[in-house]
Amino acid sequence: MSHNTFGHLFRFTTWGESHGPAIGCVVDGVPPRLALTEADIQPFLDRRRPGQSKFVTQRQEPDQVRILSGVFEGLTTGTPIALHIENTDQRSKDYSEIAERFRPGHADITYELKYGIRDYRGGGRSSARETAMRVAAGAVARKVLGPEVRIRGALVAMGGDWVDPAAWDWAAVEENAFFCPDRAAAVRWEERLLDLRKSGNSVGAVIEVVAEGVPPGLGAPIYGKLDADLAAALMSINAVKGVEIGDGFGAAALTGEENADEMRMNADGTVAYQANHAGGILGGISTGQPIVARFAVKPTSSILTPRASVDRQGQEVEVQTKGRHDPCVGIRAVPVGEAMLAIVLADHLLRHRAQNPDAPSVARLPRN
Amino acid sequence: MSHNTFGHLFRFTTWGESHGPAIGCVVDGVPPRLALTEADIQPFLDRRRPGQSKFVTQRQEPDQVRILSGVFEGLTTGTPIALHIENTDQRSKDYSEIAERFRPGHADITYELKYGIRDYRGGGRSSARETAMRVAAGAVARKVLGPEVRIRGALVAMGGDWVDPAAWDWAAVEENAFFCPDRAAAVRWEERLLDLRKSGNSVGAVIEVVAEGVPPGLGAPIYGKLDADLAAALMSINAVKGVEIGDGFGAAALTGEENADEMRMNADGTVAYQANHAGGILGGISTGQPIVARFAVKPTSSILTPRASVDRQGQEVEVQTKGRHDPCVGIRAVPVGEAMLAIVLADHLLRHRAQNPDAPSVARLPRN
Amino acid sequence: MSHNTFGHLFRFTTWGESHGPAIGCVVDGVPPRLALTEADIQPFLDRRRPGQSKFVTQRQEPDQVRILSGVFEGLTTGTPIALHIENTDQRSKDYSEIAERFRPGHADITYELKYGIRDYRGGGRSSARETAMRVAAGAVARKVLGPEVRIRGALVAMGGDWVDPAAWDWAAVEENAFFCPDRAAAVRWEERLLDLRKSGNSVGAVIEVVAEGVPPGLGAPIYGKLDADLAAALMSINAVKGVEIGDGFGAAALTGEENADEMRMNADGTVAYQANHAGGILGGISTGQPIVARFAVKPTSSILTPRASVDRQGQEVEVQTKGRHDPCVGIRAVPVGEAMLAIVLADHLLRHRAQNPDAPSVARLPRN
Amino acid sequence: MSHNTFGHLFRFTTWGESHGPAIGCVVDGVPPRLALTEADIQPFLDRRRPGQSKFVTQRQEPDQVRILSGVFEGLTTGTPIALHIENTDQRSKDYSEIAERFRPGHADITYELKYGIRDYRGGGRSSARETAMRVAAGAVARKVLGPEVRIRGALVAMGGDWVDPAAWDWAAVEENAFFCPDRAAAVRWEERLLDLRKSGNSVGAVIEVVAEGVPPGLGAPIYGKLDADLAAALMSINAVKGVEIGDGFGAAALTGEENADEMRMNADGTVAYQANHAGGILGGISTGQPIVARFAVKPTSSILTPRASVDRQGQEVEVQTKGRHDPCVGIRAVPVGEAMLAIVLADHLLRHRAQNPDAPSVARLPRN
Repeated sequence: MSHNTFGHLFRFTTWGESHGPAIGCVVDGVPPRLALTEADIQPFLDRRRPGQSKFVTQRQEPDQVRILSGVFEGLTTGTPIALHIENTDQRSKDYSEIAERFRPGHADITYELKYGIRDYRGGGRSSARETAMRVAAGAVARKVLGPEVRIRGALVAMGGDWVDPAAWDWAAVEENAFFCPDRAAAVRWEERLLDLRKSGNSVGAVIEVVAEGVPPGLGAPIYGKLDADLAAALMSINAVKGVEIGDGFGAAALTGEENADEMRMNADGTVAYQANHAGGILGGISTGQPIVARFAVKPTSSILTPRASVDRQGQEVEVQTKGRHDPCVGIRAVPVGEAMLAIVLADHLLRHRAQNPDAPSVARLPRN
Repeated sequence: MSHNTFGHLFRFTTWGESHGPAIGCVVDGVPPRLALTEADIQPFLDRRRPGQSKFVTQRQEPDQVRILSGVFEGLTTGTPIALHIENTDQRSKDYSEIAERFRPGHADITYELKYGIRDYRGGGRSSARETAMRVAAGAVARKVLGPEVRIRGALVAMGGDWVDPAAWDWAAVEENAFFCPDRAAAVRWEERLLDLRKSGNSVGAVIEVVAEGVPPGLGAPIYGKLDADLAAALMSINAVKGVEIGDGFGAAALTGEENADEMRMNADGTVAYQANHAGGILGGISTGQPIVARFAVKPTSSILTPRASVDRQGQEVEVQTKGRHDPCVGIRAVPVGEAMLAIVLADHLLRHRAQNPDAPSVARLPRN
Repeated sequence: MSHNTFGHLFRFTTWGESHGPAIGCVVDGVPPRLALTEADIQPFLDRRRPGQSKFVTQRQEPDQVRILSGVFEGLTTGTPIALHIENTDQRSKDYSEIAERFRPGHADITYELKYGIRDYRGGGRSSARETAMRVAAGAVARKVLGPEVRIRGALVAMGGDWVDPAAWDWAAVEENAFFCPDRAAAVRWEERLLDLRKSGNSVGAVIEVVAEGVPPGLGAPIYGKLDADLAAALMSINAVKGVEIGDGFGAAALTGEENADEMRMNADGTVAYQANHAGGILGGISTGQPIVARFAVKPTSSILTPRASVDRQGQEVEVQTKGRHDPCVGIRAVPVGEAMLAIVLADHLLRHRAQNPDAPSVARLPRN
Repeated sequence: MSHNTFGHLFRFTTWGESHGPAIGCVVDGVPPRLALTEADIQPFLDRRRPGQSKFVTQRQEPDQVRILSGVFEGLTTGTPIALHIENTDQRSKDYSEIAERFRPGHADITYELKYGIRDYRGGGRSSARETAMRVAAGAVARKVLGPEVRIRGALVAMGGDWVDPAAWDWAAVEENAFFCPDRAAAVRWEERLLDLRKSGNSVGAVIEVVAEGVPPGLGAPIYGKLDADLAAALMSINAVKGVEIGDGFGAAALTGEENADEMRMNADGTVAYQANHAGGILGGISTGQPIVARFAVKPTSSILTPRASVDRQGQEVEVQTKGRHDPCVGIRAVPVGEAMLAIVLADHLLRHRAQNPDAPSVARLPRN
């Protein structure tokens, strides 16, 4: 992780601004001879795309991905895979005001203080548009992980209103506009978002991502821990302010007795974990249980209410966002979170294989 | 971040097991001609040291640090600084049972599944003892940051019992055995820990770390974000299950209006932020406000209550921790969290300086 | 250096195959507010371009570079700069035979053994075409270094025929088709290449690259040495088999007395080095003298003479290259070598500045 | 490669100065369950050690290595291996003069210009003493490579006097004080070194290192090439000024016909390469042939003849090295070169395995 590159062996580098000619990424370190076409990537992009419902920004972009390298006759070659999306909806005229004024809660002022220059159009590099390339890279990562590893995500809280775990249904996630696994909550959220939309206000959210079928052994002491890399991956998503694994902050309120994930044996020689408070990771290494992580997304900073701010010259001004408005950016973060989880796992799968080629793919005992 | 090395320019590598002859680290990338002696590091180690109160493990280690390289006549030379602590209290006899049995909540089973071998004595590499070297490296990082940057930490919740923000007094932190900033909470916690100690149970905790005087501009898009690196740094600490910046998970329950950190100007040309919901970081880059982060530590996994588990041969067994017992490992994590915050900031200070040598050290406008 | 990414702070990642739709690179870590347009890059690409003389491959590519990100209103923004060149001359029909047969001296067989698949058209990823992106990134690196640093290169030997150092004239380099600094040698070489062209044979070459105006202090012990990074950079160029700094292999034949670069003082307080056997680098760190490096390029492996080889099925075959033929690939390596030198220096300039912001930009004594 | 760390997956970090209390390294990324004790490392250190013949520095150091972590009951555990050597022969009094005066050809002046401070005693960090830790790490790398990979080195030229390839006998290497594979050359060299010793002068050398049994497929395009990493590894050794692979600079004088390594098939389905001009690497990837590299070491800079120089204050002075004198530092570089070759191969073996777990271990066709 540094600059605009993420990962150690499975590694991707993104580039592009919201209103430049295109955005793209280079995915490197992919094993050869994996079947890969644009059709493997496009569905994930479509799922993240703004404009698919009334609750996310009405930017109309087809987000059509092209593979420019690294794939030959439908198979990966082991060389870098360049992915490319043209920016077709660049309404630069909407953004003239924010050239000089810093929107509270946005990166405008920090880019100015750091670089002394910024591409202010649509947020430039700090736009959530960058996350499209994470989703594209995530689709490639899923290929590396193979079909045994299943990665899904859901919105589990919106503005403090949580889903009911007892009502969780993965099928529901694809039925509503919020990736909400609880049908009753989805109804409540819809109402709330319509209100927020009218008032020009916004609201935060919490997303949960889960990976099933992950082999034990991924991750490593001490600064290559799976959960540490996952925390960085999720925290790097725009507007994310918190990350937790398993019981997370809830674990801080438990006793050691309550928190212990006891173990028994299955008949097939695999470990039967009795609970998963740990979220599938112990000592930075996967246990073979589902990896469970949640992250908190702050409310959209672009709101219609005028806010006190300052401009580049140090004058006090008011800033009011006009044009497109997204009452809950957290919704779009669901596919992005899934992608980052896939990317971290793919990277660690390769790293693990390098050092431990004969490690078991399930939690079987005795190991040898 | 990978393997046992953390950081990009300011970088440290730790080594050593709980019951090996020594533990150590190599701190690399330190600017030259900084005054540094063991006396600059030892106080931070003493603060973390087990055995200083009745509420942390009774291991008696002087944890005397030695500088073996990189310092000449009391000044850093720009070459790697090797720090070394002998392990003097190695009661290997206590640990014979856990050679074969996996303690629930510990890394025993994941090390076994990954490596097929582990130094089981006292947790080996996964022991919290490794964090002593983080604290030592953190002391060097503070030197790099200079006296303008002030880094402090406190325990803000124990077992779900939170401190009262209104009662916060930094002076209190040094007065009790828990780094607790709320004197009334410290009294409650003492009682609770005595109970847990008797019952052999344990409890989780939340730590808050704060850095004041941090220049704006630290951190960078997109995978070199300050908060992403900080999330990885804190999540890499033993037993940590969650990390948040500023309002963190609380931000997910706010509206955009509530969450906006509005801005006015101070008379001296610096930005007067009206709030700090963002925890001092916007778009992955520091704003010049205090950096505020919290992290959740799960309850100590070593408890006296017997738990169901399995052994290396795949047999079902019971495991009960004997010997030293630490009812709340979160307490010791306070100095470790401070150290990791210092390390992340030192690394990003160098990275920022490399690319932006003329950036301002305070949030002044206009920038130029 | 790993995968398809080079550099630590100034860092670039290349992608693309010879006969894919495009090639490109992402240049990351560039300081903000440097003036940069395509016109700053294009001349360097034109200089490297095949087809400009009768002695290099007759591939007709305009190699028109586009900047797709990281530049706003003519200035760098500090975010990643994506550079893009369409592949317009893709005669895929020429390459059907080499799909199955391994050309001796080429990477055909090693890609097959490593990946089990390769884009064989025109060499795919292993084509010298990739070096166009190095040249493009090198143009950006020159911007980072600024006008004080002057980087030039020349062909100093072709097929064992060396230039006369006494006849060296930098102006001559731009006058002939070989980047030859010795006008008499250029005449000899022209004759020789015409012969080789007729016979379908090829010849190796040696290139010298020189950087003047480099500040002292670039590079660092022990595995961040300037000469080590430069060696990797030059050795990574296609067909390079040797790299040397200063007197290089010649130094191995000298005595210590002969090899010493003695020092006196200039009137202005700077060091007057009496010689530069060291090639401007001592202990891995620049002295402030010109950096001088040479690298050896093997003869073009694609020749018209049939050679014994094998195919993918393990059958013995004969291979004869048809179509475009380049009697001395070393010629085109001159601008590539310059680019890699610029890139290494730009990276180390940033790295040096991070750790030593107050180091002098010339070899002045006393230092402070 | 950066700072004091080398390698990507198999990675080591060295620390320590010539006259500090100790030197050491941390070897990280080692696969678990390899048998490893000090006895596996010590013989390589003994081979490099000064003081074993009259032709290398008479420093008397036992160079006794200790393993401080990462090995449990004689087996590696997958965690970092700390290696430690006490400095027992620290004659600090010999070095008082060079505190102020810069020795020509040494890193004294570049450390001063970069850092403004240096541990001048015995060269401090820039001392060849650091190479002991490379040799130690190299011994661990050999374990990772396994017994199939055989790595050897020899001195092939001293002061321009080359060995006769026809007289090469690996057995001779261990019989003389120069690692010389040509018994006649060894006799000539002995005479020459006695003369140089008397006159206080010194001489350069060329070392060849060879690895047999290396699987095909190690290395990767474009900036992870095996030869590029090897070039960096060898160039990072003290006093090295040139590196070449296979025919190296000689290849630049060949024609394409001469340089082609033609291929036939062996009866067992492996490729029968007819020559090895390429030194076992094509396109940055190993072919399965022996890896052959040579590097040039400049003459020892510390000579008894007075040389013109300057001091820290910018005064012109004369410098004459007193005390221990090593007429050919190249001799000791033989085991160091072997170690660096082993380290690069071990790193690339792990990297290759991560991406291509099912690649063949010999050059067999058809691959699948």
